[in-house]
Amino acid sequence: MADDEPILDIAHLGHVELLTPKPEESLRFFVDVMGMTESGRRGDSVYLRGWDDYERYSLQLTASRTSGLGHAAFRARSPWALERRLAALRADGAEVWAQEGELGHGTGWRFRDPDGHVFELYYDTEWYEAPPERRPALKNQAERYPARGVNVRRLDHFNCLAVDVRANRAFFERNLGLRCTERIELDTGEEAGMWLTSNNKSYDFAFTKEAHGIPGRFHHVTFALDSREAILQAADTFLEAGVFIETGPHKHAVQQTFFLYVYEPGGNRVEVAHAGARLILAPDWKTITWTEAERRRGQAWGLKTIESFHTHGTPPLPDPETSGGDLSGTGIAS
Amino acid sequence: MADDEPILDIAHLGHVELLTPKPEESLRFFVDVMGMTESGRRGDSVYLRGWDDYERYSLQLTASRTSGLGHAAFRARSPWALERRLAALRADGAEVWAQEGELGHGTGWRFRDPDGHVFELYYDTEWYEAPPERRPALKNQAERYPARGVNVRRLDHFNCLAVDVRANRAFFERNLGLRCTERIELDTGEEAGMWLTSNNKSYDFAFTKEAHGIPGRFHHVTFALDSREAILQAADTFLEAGVFIETGPHKHAVQQTFFLYVYEPGGNRVEVAHAGARLILAPDWKTITWTEAERRRGQAWGLKTIESFHTHGTPPLPDPETSGGDLSGTGIAS
Amino acid sequence: MADDEPILDIAHLGHVELLTPKPEESLRFFVDVMGMTESGRRGDSVYLRGWDDYERYSLQLTASRTSGLGHAAFRARSPWALERRLAALRADGAEVWAQEGELGHGTGWRFRDPDGHVFELYYDTEWYEAPPERRPALKNQAERYPARGVNVRRLDHFNCLAVDVRANRAFFERNLGLRCTERIELDTGEEAGMWLTSNNKSYDFAFTKEAHGIPGRFHHVTFALDSREAILQAADTFLEAGVFIETGPHKHAVQQTFFLYVYEPGGNRVEVAHAGARLILAPDWKTITWTEAERRRGQAWGLKTIESFHTHGTPPLPDPETSGGDLSGTGIAS
Amino acid sequence: MADDEPILDIAHLGHVELLTPKPEESLRFFVDVMGMTESGRRGDSVYLRGWDDYERYSLQLTASRTSGLGHAAFRARSPWALERRLAALRADGAEVWAQEGELGHGTGWRFRDPDGHVFELYYDTEWYEAPPERRPALKNQAERYPARGVNVRRLDHFNCLAVDVRANRAFFERNLGLRCTERIELDTGEEAGMWLTSNNKSYDFAFTKEAHGIPGRFHHVTFALDSREAILQAADTFLEAGVFIETGPHKHAVQQTFFLYVYEPGGNRVEVAHAGARLILAPDWKTITWTEAERRRGQAWGLKTIESFHTHGTPPLPDPETSGGDLSGTGIAS
Repeated sequence: MADDEPILDIAHLGHVELLTPKPEESLRFFVDVMGMTESGRRGDSVYLRGWDDYERYSLQLTASRTSGLGHAAFRARSPWALERRLAALRADGAEVWAQEGELGHGTGWRFRDPDGHVFELYYDTEWYEAPPERRPALKNQAERYPARGVNVRRLDHFNCLAVDVRANRAFFERNLGLRCTERIELDTGEEAGMWLTSNNKSYDFAFTKEAHGIPGRFHHVTFALDSREAILQAADTFLEAGVFIETGPHKHAVQQTFFLYVYEPGGNRVEVAHAGARLILAPDWKTITWTEAERRRGQAWGLKTIESFHTHGTPPLPDPETSGGDLSGTGIAS
Repeated sequence: MADDEPILDIAHLGHVELLTPKPEESLRFFVDVMGMTESGRRGDSVYLRGWDDYERYSLQLTASRTSGLGHAAFRARSPWALERRLAALRADGAEVWAQEGELGHGTGWRFRDPDGHVFELYYDTEWYEAPPERRPALKNQAERYPARGVNVRRLDHFNCLAVDVRANRAFFERNLGLRCTERIELDTGEEAGMWLTSNNKSYDFAFTKEAHGIPGRFHHVTFALDSREAILQAADTFLEAGVFIETGPHKHAVQQTFFLYVYEPGGNRVEVAHAGARLILAPDWKTITWTEAERRRGQAWGLKTIESFHTHGTPPLPDPETSGGDLSGTGIAS
Repeated sequence: MADDEPILDIAHLGHVELLTPKPEESLRFFVDVMGMTESGRRGDSVYLRGWDDYERYSLQLTASRTSGLGHAAFRARSPWALERRLAALRADGAEVWAQEGELGHGTGWRFRDPDGHVFELYYDTEWYEAPPERRPALKNQAERYPARGVNVRRLDHFNCLAVDVRANRAFFERNLGLRCTERIELDTGEEAGMWLTSNNKSYDFAFTKEAHGIPGRFHHVTFALDSREAILQAADTFLEAGVFIETGPHKHAVQQTFFLYVYEPGGNRVEVAHAGARLILAPDWKTITWTEAERRRGQAWGLKTIESFHTHGTPPLPDPETSGGDLSGTGIAS
Repeated sequence: MADDEPILDIAHLGHVELLTPKPEESLRFFVDVMGMTESGRRGDSVYLRGWDDYERYSLQLTASRTSGLGHAAFRARSPWALERRLAALRADGAEVWAQEGELGHGTGWRFRDPDGHVFELYYDTEWYEAPPERRPALKNQAERYPARGVNVRRLDHFNCLAVDVRANRAFFERNLGLRCTERIELDTGEEAGMWLTSNNKSYDFAFTKEAHGIPGRFHHVTFALDSREAILQAADTFLEAGVFIETGPHKHAVQQTFFLYVYEPGGNRVEVAHAGARLILAPDWKTITWTEAERRRGQAWGLKTIESFHTHGTPPLPDPETSGGDLSGTGIAS
């Protein structure tokens, strides 16, 4: 294997752990409104899944003092791929620790990104076995289509905030071999956003600029629905359920995803999205860099990026007075 | 690298060469009705593309005495990946020859599958550069959305017929490292269909049983549209243009693709399809095997597989009287 | 008012009473799978509605020895319009009787069409008042969008069988002033189908040829969903719920409605449909007449009309041996 | 006929005449981008149509010194209905004059609404006869589906500005018998918007408050597309064609229409919209009145009404300095 061959050791985003100070309300939101299935409980956590997630769960909802990201977990492509990434992380100076006994998968190898978010790698996993009443009509499907709420199909991606976006990108590129498909560079040269992928999806996660200098914060988690029409139906479903709709439906200019953002009861931002037939097939995809001026134009069809998109993250800011270096109004993030 | 690590050397299907005895009519079909863009001409070939294909072209349309597949080409993930696959093919006894001077990419390394179809591997490629009048509004898109005909987004997959489907599958699995996501096995144990992928798409190509014992025949090429609604609109567009609609729109049980089949003027079957948000993310996906009884149920929502789906391939049969071992009526292929 | 002015006395189809020998299973189907709301019970009947039906109910489900149509009711445009139509019916020799005490509307004036089906006219009606938990977010909507099952929006139309379709059409044209938007005429001159409307919908009900000479039978009732994508989602919902899908989704040639037919547990055929933005706006619309040859081409995109579409009606035939004059295979009805 | 019977003399909106100071650019917009068909030329006017408009045209595009509405024409339900409305107008003191020799229909009887816009009533009309190359595959359709641009299906409605909205509403209710389905009433008691219909569409036209005290101005004309997905596709088509997108796609709270607004080259605002399966079927529909507070919440899913929506009308204001009584920022119109 040549030194500059692409690293393909990460298969996909496996699950995201969300912290919520309102666990019961959050659970009702994900089951009744999002249409997800509860597939396990342990300790302070309830585990949930979309009907097309092949693993036991894609969302771990954990009761907590506050909101935000617990951890984000990626499945390696093979046991050897997992070993290679752990070795790379250690060689890079990262502290890697083993998290044993998690529901639904083998040892979770955890580490922190430069901004302090907890990530996890694992390989062994439990495939979802639907109980009789959730068994699908077609054998190539993990679970019955629920016909309830917004009918989440599968976990798609998540987005964190980072004080130094560029440093975080470099960390994931060199240690996990992820590819940056798109990014935003301000006129000052600062990186305001970046989108990374491990596979043919145009992104598995993104980092955008933390406007208040607080590390480790979370922006949103995204679930894939099956069509743009399903996103529009979801907007009505959220409206009727009294869920706060922050912005959308509209089409992002960055990545061109059709999106809709809401806040779940625990305060975390949740997106439902659809990518059409878009895939990143080129193994040598050339990163798209958006300028500050280009981002000021707003979303694809002209919608201005909403103020709170630059300011709302979880957990909430320790004190609203302390916010500084605010990007709001620049319209640069997507 | 461990011996049983997944092989990830093939990046994606790059282009398909279709032979047509009616080159002018076929070209008009692909440009006016399919909404594709002509991006080159050389010799007997015209080259075409969908608006989201990142390479110069995804369809080579070649004037010929008859219809059928010229060749199907796959892009390797890297120069080293290409070398590894060529070495594997040669070690397996395949004759591999270099095709120089093709439009839009470096040396094409060609070989035949056991059934005689010509395949090609390449790495170096020409990225499409849109002329001013085809330049898109968003910089992360290859070409302007045409708003013409059925608005083909990109090449998706193709399907060939094979006398011995199982032998063909084994050839691609062991030499190219492709993964079989779904297959059909008759009660006799014979393999009647198989779907292979190199990436997160649920298939890059398929082989189904040749009912007449004639090797090297072609079943269809498929282009991805951007929604199921676009497939329904395409049905009207085909209807208005006088294009023969063979079957659909409907949803396949196998792979769950939403599909619509037509015949282009040269006689080749062409599909437009949409997969929703479906992706094969598991690196160790467990092949789904459909039985003869399961396939008899028809498509996902009960549509019976149309007779001609088992009999029509290109080039046409040398003589209609010679057909034997006909699978028609068994409803086993999708 | 001139003698040949259009009669506009009927406002719209108000409700349909379906008879079912399996009342509990039928109720579960309409509530859980169709996503309708129960809005009343009286005697052997349960009353149901779609979220956009403005009246208290649009479906009366009545426990019965067998299946079929109880009655179909139309709301008049005004008290005077109602009087005019009753006078016309009586002058034409129809027996008209008052049905008092029905749930949700004033006196129902009933009569039989020449084929024996019971129709009803009424004017006074009860507007649906949603209880707090069903109250919609937008005040211009009758009830909350359910986000459950196939999310029936409103009653759309129904279809009955008639031994003499032409006689039935003439009856409704002369007595109710309904307009025939499309019809099918066989080569023999016999009328095989006709579609009547009272408003801008392209049809409120249809009659197609009864193939077995049995009067008074019912073909299907249709509910409007909000998009073609919703029809496709409904196909999956029916599939998962084990509901028998007879044919579709596809687009009718006649009236161009996008359709999907299933059987509810009581045996009655139920359609979900979407008309796009199609309306009959012309006050002097010229009836479209389809020939036998044209109907043989099948549905809009070529789907052949399924055999059972010509034979299955409710109640079931008294004895399968008695069927005569069978239209099956002629492909003439839509 | 009782005195308080509903008046049903107007069948539907027939056509709208738009004035444009850039006739060539406007024509190219309507043909190439909107996908409409030119169906006539006379004097300074070009006549255009959507593929489902049954009359010869629905849009008259007239070269002019400035932009705005030429006139809006409604077809009566019958010759007698036309006479009745003309008599009512005259009895009400309106000046009614005959416009002879217009393309495609009989005498146009014109009058001004209290705000000065020119309206027209007519009955005799020319049904569109498609030339061979525009002939549709299905005989119940006026013209071939174009598969070009945004594929306008038919004219849907228009919106004018009025200094005294309430006076304008009363004029149309008492003289044409139109029904007001929804309206906006400010806290001051002033009427800020009203939507009128002659049929089952929820509106044929609307009037919203003119913020600058200038009578006779135009807000937008709307064409129906066939699905919400088509509106989303249209957004891309407009984006690629360099057409200014003002706001949308989104769903109106008022009337719940899914909308997208652009400016055509002549400066007039043009909307493409889809209503789902929504119809006003109740003959005694109870007008929905929105309060100022309710309108401040923005559109259905929370989009704030864009500033220019309250200020941009055609023709442009004589002088930007003269504007007064500006509603901008109140978010009250939809």
